[in-house]
Amino acid sequence: MKAWMFNGVGSPIDLAEVPDPTPGPGEVVVDLKAAGLCHTDVGITDGTMAEILGFTPIILGHEAAGIVSAVGDGVENVSIGDRVAVSAMGDGKSGVLGQKNIGVGRHGAYAEKTLAPASEIIPLPETVPFEQAAAATDAGMTSYHAVFVRGGLKPGTRVGIIGLGGLGMTAARLAVLGGGEVYAAEINPRVHAAGIERGVKQVVDDVKELAAFELDLIVDFAGFGTTTAGAIEVVNSGGRVVQVGLGRAEATINTHLLTMKEVELRGSIGGTPADTVEVLKFISSGDLAISTQSIGFTEIRSGLEQLARGDVGGKRLVALFD
Amino acid sequence: MKAWMFNGVGSPIDLAEVPDPTPGPGEVVVDLKAAGLCHTDVGITDGTMAEILGFTPIILGHEAAGIVSAVGDGVENVSIGDRVAVSAMGDGKSGVLGQKNIGVGRHGAYAEKTLAPASEIIPLPETVPFEQAAAATDAGMTSYHAVFVRGGLKPGTRVGIIGLGGLGMTAARLAVLGGGEVYAAEINPRVHAAGIERGVKQVVDDVKELAAFELDLIVDFAGFGTTTAGAIEVVNSGGRVVQVGLGRAEATINTHLLTMKEVELRGSIGGTPADTVEVLKFISSGDLAISTQSIGFTEIRSGLEQLARGDVGGKRLVALFD
Repeated sequence: MKAWMFNGVGSPIDLAEVPDPTPGPGEVVVDLKAAGLCHTDVGITDGTMAEILGFTPIILGHEAAGIVSAVGDGVENVSIGDRVAVSAMGDGKSGVLGQKNIGVGRHGAYAEKTLAPASEIIPLPETVPFEQAAAATDAGMTSYHAVFVRGGLKPGTRVGIIGLGGLGMTAARLAVLGGGEVYAAEINPRVHAAGIERGVKQVVDDVKELAAFELDLIVDFAGFGTTTAGAIEVVNSGGRVVQVGLGRAEATINTHLLTMKEVELRGSIGGTPADTVEVLKFISSGDLAISTQSIGFTEIRSGLEQLARGDVGGKRLVALFD
Repeated sequence: MKAWMFNGVGSPIDLAEVPDPTPGPGEVVVDLKAAGLCHTDVGITDGTMAEILGFTPIILGHEAAGIVSAVGDGVENVSIGDRVAVSAMGDGKSGVLGQKNIGVGRHGAYAEKTLAPASEIIPLPETVPFEQAAAATDAGMTSYHAVFVRGGLKPGTRVGIIGLGGLGMTAARLAVLGGGEVYAAEINPRVHAAGIERGVKQVVDDVKELAAFELDLIVDFAGFGTTTAGAIEVVNSGGRVVQVGLGRAEATINTHLLTMKEVELRGSIGGTPADTVEVLKFISSGDLAISTQSIGFTEIRSGLEQLARGDVGGKRLVALFD
């Protein structure tokens, strides 16, 4: 099969011909139809996140959707011909940075086929396109996890989203669907209207302006230090700030205020297959569409380069396979 | 009656003769037997926390224990002669910084008598001395709230306490009594033995050394910025850091690590009357003794001056009345 191979930091991924995978006991082979491109892959190839990689040469790509083409002995939950996604986070029992996750600890989705444990297969509702399914496995899941699991959003929660990029926009829509009263801060005014279209009540330019909305929960998808600090300042007493974005490694926060207001600041990373299942339900019902831009299989290398330059405009790049 | 009156920032408290209070409907008068001296009073008198004060001139003192000497109409839960403490945090329904709290929003405990709503009266178990009761209402309650309510300590929790001063030492003992496996970091080696005596397994000098103990929970009673940052670094993935101490107003924390480890940082301030009741039970059973040092009523002014200089050695100063 054709596969994009990553040989090590400093060299771009290369298209190669490699043997087709065959399923061992408890494993399945998925013929890929869509593979999402993630910033994590940029971090792996440029070396800043190289420590999470299991080995090289490796086929990257951890947002996978396709059709099952082979199943190994003992597999009962999956059949040949099933439309499926592969969990980006393993079976959900080994933590978010499991050692054998797709595209990180084993070969991934930038190939015509991928091998996965049957326990990591997520069946797709009929109405969910492969492109949306691929984006749901990581970008969608991460947004859901931050808003609902770590954020604890309930109907009526007054929530602020910082940063209406790809993840933030999906999170804002999910928060609306979860019954939250949703506000957002986004530095780029051209994105404001898209937020309003998705049900956000008001979009302001700066985090500090969120103070007017008396928020119980703020989810920071920017993570520029000042956004974390600003969120702690403007959130209600007893409120919660969820940190997702990693724009900067550090933040200088007002611990006096954090203590006096009994605010809590919680990190959120990744999620679980169960989170992805919830995202797929919202897509299936037509209530959620993750913003994506499709490219071809041969464009995966140039797509990652585009992602590295940061000019994708909040849309998830998803490679569609013929 | 005799009372210590605070006339405003810049002037020390003065002993004055003022009219005895009389109870209105739903109120009681407590003849004070003990009044704890708190750092908050230093902050009020030096102006750094002046904003929390309701009015001047005012009688400060919010750690009160004594005997009920008069009750107003409609009071059913309290009788003349009852040994009681007064909640430092109101009735627990108006938040930790309630506008009418004793010694902050109304006259307090640095006087022979104080007036309190019957709803703020906490009956004392027979075996609890007034000195311990007074210290329980704020110092004890704050420690309990941080460890159990905000920290969520359960039997078996691996917990680290930063700072074995007055509150930290009480918190460490409470954590032991709650079934935690307790470690501590304390810069002053002369205090280490007292921690071990109270059931702490090991006391280290520096926060970073806590890494060896794989802690799920760290409660920071120092709050020197570096302690907050260090706690986030060394706590387990998925762990929790509770911020109580206010040594510095700011901390520069590693948000990258907070996010990747899904750590949470929660502020904790004060507590509720229910927390004080739990502390009183531990004192009553003989399992907990808050470290106190008794002074006389006439020494309250010099006691606050001693507190301002910081030379009280981890013991709560409590004024005992004749």
